[in-house]
Amino acid sequence: MNVSNPQSSPVFSKLAISLSPLYLSAPAAVELVQSIGLKACMAGIAEFIHADFLRWEDFDKSARVANHSLDGVIELMPIADDTTYSFKYVNGHPKNTAMGLSTVMAFGVMADVATGAPLFLSELTLTTALRTAATSALAAKVLARPDSKVMALIGNGAQSEFQALAFQHLVGIETVRLYDLDPLASAKCMANLSRSGLDLQICDSIAQAVQGADIVTTVTADKSCATIITSDLIEPGMHINGVGGDCPGKTELAASVLAASKVFVEYTPQSRVEGDIQQMPDDFAVTELWQVLKGQKSGRDHVSQITVFDSVGFALEDFAALRFMYEAACALGMGERLSLIPKLSDPKNLFGTLLKTGLKSDGLCVAS
Amino acid sequence: MNVSNPQSSPVFSKLAISLSPLYLSAPAAVELVQSIGLKACMAGIAEFIHADFLRWEDFDKSARVANHSLDGVIELMPIADDTTYSFKYVNGHPKNTAMGLSTVMAFGVMADVATGAPLFLSELTLTTALRTAATSALAAKVLARPDSKVMALIGNGAQSEFQALAFQHLVGIETVRLYDLDPLASAKCMANLSRSGLDLQICDSIAQAVQGADIVTTVTADKSCATIITSDLIEPGMHINGVGGDCPGKTELAASVLAASKVFVEYTPQSRVEGDIQQMPDDFAVTELWQVLKGQKSGRDHVSQITVFDSVGFALEDFAALRFMYEAACALGMGERLSLIPKLSDPKNLFGTLLKTGLKSDGLCVAS
Repeated sequence: MNVSNPQSSPVFSKLAISLSPLYLSAPAAVELVQSIGLKACMAGIAEFIHADFLRWEDFDKSARVANHSLDGVIELMPIADDTTYSFKYVNGHPKNTAMGLSTVMAFGVMADVATGAPLFLSELTLTTALRTAATSALAAKVLARPDSKVMALIGNGAQSEFQALAFQHLVGIETVRLYDLDPLASAKCMANLSRSGLDLQICDSIAQAVQGADIVTTVTADKSCATIITSDLIEPGMHINGVGGDCPGKTELAASVLAASKVFVEYTPQSRVEGDIQQMPDDFAVTELWQVLKGQKSGRDHVSQITVFDSVGFALEDFAALRFMYEAACALGMGERLSLIPKLSDPKNLFGTLLKTGLKSDGLCVAS
Repeated sequence: MNVSNPQSSPVFSKLAISLSPLYLSAPAAVELVQSIGLKACMAGIAEFIHADFLRWEDFDKSARVANHSLDGVIELMPIADDTTYSFKYVNGHPKNTAMGLSTVMAFGVMADVATGAPLFLSELTLTTALRTAATSALAAKVLARPDSKVMALIGNGAQSEFQALAFQHLVGIETVRLYDLDPLASAKCMANLSRSGLDLQICDSIAQAVQGADIVTTVTADKSCATIITSDLIEPGMHINGVGGDCPGKTELAASVLAASKVFVEYTPQSRVEGDIQQMPDDFAVTELWQVLKGQKSGRDHVSQITVFDSVGFALEDFAALRFMYEAACALGMGERLSLIPKLSDPKNLFGTLLKTGLKSDGLCVAS
């Protein structure tokens, strides 16, 4: 097992273009993560995201395309460099859980830019949770105080354990204080993390969870302009990892919190519309994370500064995660092949595929 | 076999939302078309497209999202009404044929708007050829002279036979005059159509093919500002079905041809960028096809008018085609199920999927 090349995609260059993309199902992705180990997976994805963020200028970027409906949104997130293209399909339907469905479901495709041939179709529901947590940790490593040990985790739903573990293993967090409107969610999160080695505390209020925390992570799901975090809760030196506010009309942080903080985003044109900064004027100053990672701009300027990572999720993170999962699946021999594209002996003779085994005799044409 | 409800999607409403979308592979789509018959398939798809064009205002529409590269383009084409969402992935790489690959490869997904759950993943390479020809024929039925019998077919590549047969069966064309720069392409097209009942003539020049034709169909593939059809070739009363000019820098008709014609498009914001009308001023008058189909605007105004359908392919046509293929596959019991989305007993417990069968003991967490 060798998934250790975050800088490039050597697997692609070695592969003859196949018209049968590799398919990684949801159960296969679980098996893959179990084989590699969750910690190694999150570290690997974080490494790939980091490497791709350093190549920011190489990418053809755009804000995602969203179709909004009454109860949710369906989005497509395409991105490409000179050799590789990817997109993610992802929904956001907070009321789904009441029906036994996930709020967020996703899948994605990676394709060859030179020919347009799809190379990889993968589940991205689990993978999105991994890459979101990896991105949060990557940001916190350059934005939070280096001695951060205690994290408040507000919202204990599907994303929460991944956030806790990414911060434990990639940032060095030792204590996680859990809060959710639904006590069952906190209990579930606590149970899932019981053997993690984290010191876990269930709190009765947001204020209790946040007080004295080094990092505050918000991963709530309601599609509403909520103010989970108000400025009276904030202490000097805190880093706020705002993950749940990620589409128009869905926020978590009070405007006064943003105004008092140095705010970092992924891709400004998308974050202005979808992030917590949708509450702020268009010229509200933000710094893009890649600029900090690349050393072009400063992250945290002093120990008592309040920093906010206003995360919405950007296509480049999925590009990197797909790249990691593809290399891992190839290395482990996992996944199966799909006949998604017709195989033609003469590419100008698409019609010939209909003739080979005989068309129904409807007076149109009959196989020779 | 009953695929006879172009007005709505009854199959969806009857289905409990499944997290295992139906998958129709490229070979399965061939089998489906062979089972139903090509003529019935094209007629059915045309009927579904017609029905959806009449509901034009019901759709959340946008121009497709394109990632351009040196040799081609990869596009995503999303669209949704209140209940159903769809998108198509499609590339355009004219140099692919030299490598034995298709110029155009496509697949698509249909999803449930209320929950975001994907319902159907289908090949769309063959299906795109069917829906493009069906749309062309649908437009010609309201734009060409009703007595049209002779069609010039310029460009005899992968799309050509589908165009010929759609015009034969849906418009009443009896004679097709073939021209391609590559004589082998014309020979292939002629051979494929040999039992169609069409009177087929291979021509030595575009001028020879076009002279006296009632309808001129252009389906060339070069990504260049070509002028396949110049105004000296055009005769009063002709209908031009311009299919090949479909992205920036890819045109087929001389500007003077457009200036002398009444021009019809699918979705104006997209056609201004991608269609042959990209050569014309932004205020160049065009009529949208749905307006003619709905009786809101006139099509051909008199027998000697020159009409142009400046077709680029619009997401609504794929929406309708996916709907047809889905209903047909369900009715025929074709396709298989993909586990693309995790099945969770508790949707807030995505992490639990990793625990069920035991995580690798990497110090992170171990299954109970």
